[in-house]
Amino acid sequence: MSIQNVKAIVFDTFGTISDWRSSIAREAEIIAAAKGVKDFDGDAFARAWRAGYRPGMKPVITGEREWTPIDVIHREILEEILAPFGLDMLDEAERDHLNRAWHRINPWPDSIPGLIRIKRKHLIAPLSNGSLTLLANMAKRAGIPWDFVFSSDMHKAYKRDPKVYQNAIALLGMEPHEVMMGAAHNDDLEAAREQGMRTGYINRPTEYGVDQTKDFEAESDWDIIADSVEDLAEALGC
Amino acid sequence: MSIQNVKAIVFDTFGTISDWRSSIAREAEIIAAAKGVKDFDGDAFARAWRAGYRPGMKPVITGEREWTPIDVIHREILEEILAPFGLDMLDEAERDHLNRAWHRINPWPDSIPGLIRIKRKHLIAPLSNGSLTLLANMAKRAGIPWDFVFSSDMHKAYKRDPKVYQNAIALLGMEPHEVMMGAAHNDDLEAAREQGMRTGYINRPTEYGVDQTKDFEAESDWDIIADSVEDLAEALGC
Repeated sequence: MSIQNVKAIVFDTFGTISDWRSSIAREAEIIAAAKGVKDFDGDAFARAWRAGYRPGMKPVITGEREWTPIDVIHREILEEILAPFGLDMLDEAERDHLNRAWHRINPWPDSIPGLIRIKRKHLIAPLSNGSLTLLANMAKRAGIPWDFVFSSDMHKAYKRDPKVYQNAIALLGMEPHEVMMGAAHNDDLEAAREQGMRTGYINRPTEYGVDQTKDFEAESDWDIIADSVEDLAEALGC
Repeated sequence: MSIQNVKAIVFDTFGTISDWRSSIAREAEIIAAAKGVKDFDGDAFARAWRAGYRPGMKPVITGEREWTPIDVIHREILEEILAPFGLDMLDEAERDHLNRAWHRINPWPDSIPGLIRIKRKHLIAPLSNGSLTLLANMAKRAGIPWDFVFSSDMHKAYKRDPKVYQNAIALLGMEPHEVMMGAAHNDDLEAAREQGMRTGYINRPTEYGVDQTKDFEAESDWDIIADSVEDLAEALGC
């Protein structure tokens, strides 16, 4: 499949552009230390929080639950894991601040250098389950040079709901094959390919740390298979 | 009214951030010269094109016409003015290129310096009747540092439809008074104020040139009244 006609590249953020695990672990460790919590495992805390992410979105995707913003879902999971990790003394303001740690996660080292190159030739944006303020705050803080932002609340849907990909293509006013999905998750690319989009796999085998059970490698013949965003830029001729 | 709690500032683009008249005139003059059209008045051409803009959106706003993207409306007006201006020899590719001159309009000289200052403290975005690719292309070409983009196709509505302002506030997940509208058009600010937003007037008395009949000055006690985006930044304490 030709990638010559690709005009816009939209990216998964959590895991693909940004390293949520180390970022969340660090913020949690800082607050745990301030509260005098002994033997706190920030990495386990980040992984526990993330483990609730897909189950949290599932009832929204299946239609069992009305549209619910990601900050609300993150907060619900946080409420469940605070006590087991010894952080149930946090007050409302502290919980809210910690919940917004997802607005402050850092990019992988190759993400910004790669995006700067890709941006010269293509429109670039996140196509993420994050909310608008989460994605805008994350980009602003870290200097991620998006041309614009697609957030889940614009679609009122979460990936892998086909509506997300269809709505992004429609808003761009482009043909599906003129839009590429860049992601570290094979099922995200599968959902994008089903809508006729081009696909770029970016390998992130350490995303989930000891919890990683899949996405160690490309599981299909994606249009581009890359080891980093810089590698993707190279393959795109940027 | 306090402006202390403002977190995000959304801007009108055509006329407020960008000087469509000189930009469209220049592009039209280049193509007219290339085609050997004598006595072509680029400024009059730009004003004639713009004169069809509000009438073109009106049936969409009133609901008489289904949602129609701005590129389509711009093209319909263009088709009407090509012959009177001696440009009816343009072929399809040339018409399409000229129509996209709206994706390439330049900012006023104070816009980017002002936005850079405001961006340090606030989220900034267009709240424009432009399409997503129009606004993203315009920003990318000129270096307008938006944090994200609100386009008319995201709301499936044009200003001054209240839905546009309501949807922007909802997507931001903020209180109406935490969002400021920045515009050179008094009626845009009036529509924003009706939704509880804060208002910043930016005076652009030369926007329409000899066609300008209103918006020579602030016509209400807007929260901020400024002569430029830099002046708005100053008033915001940025």
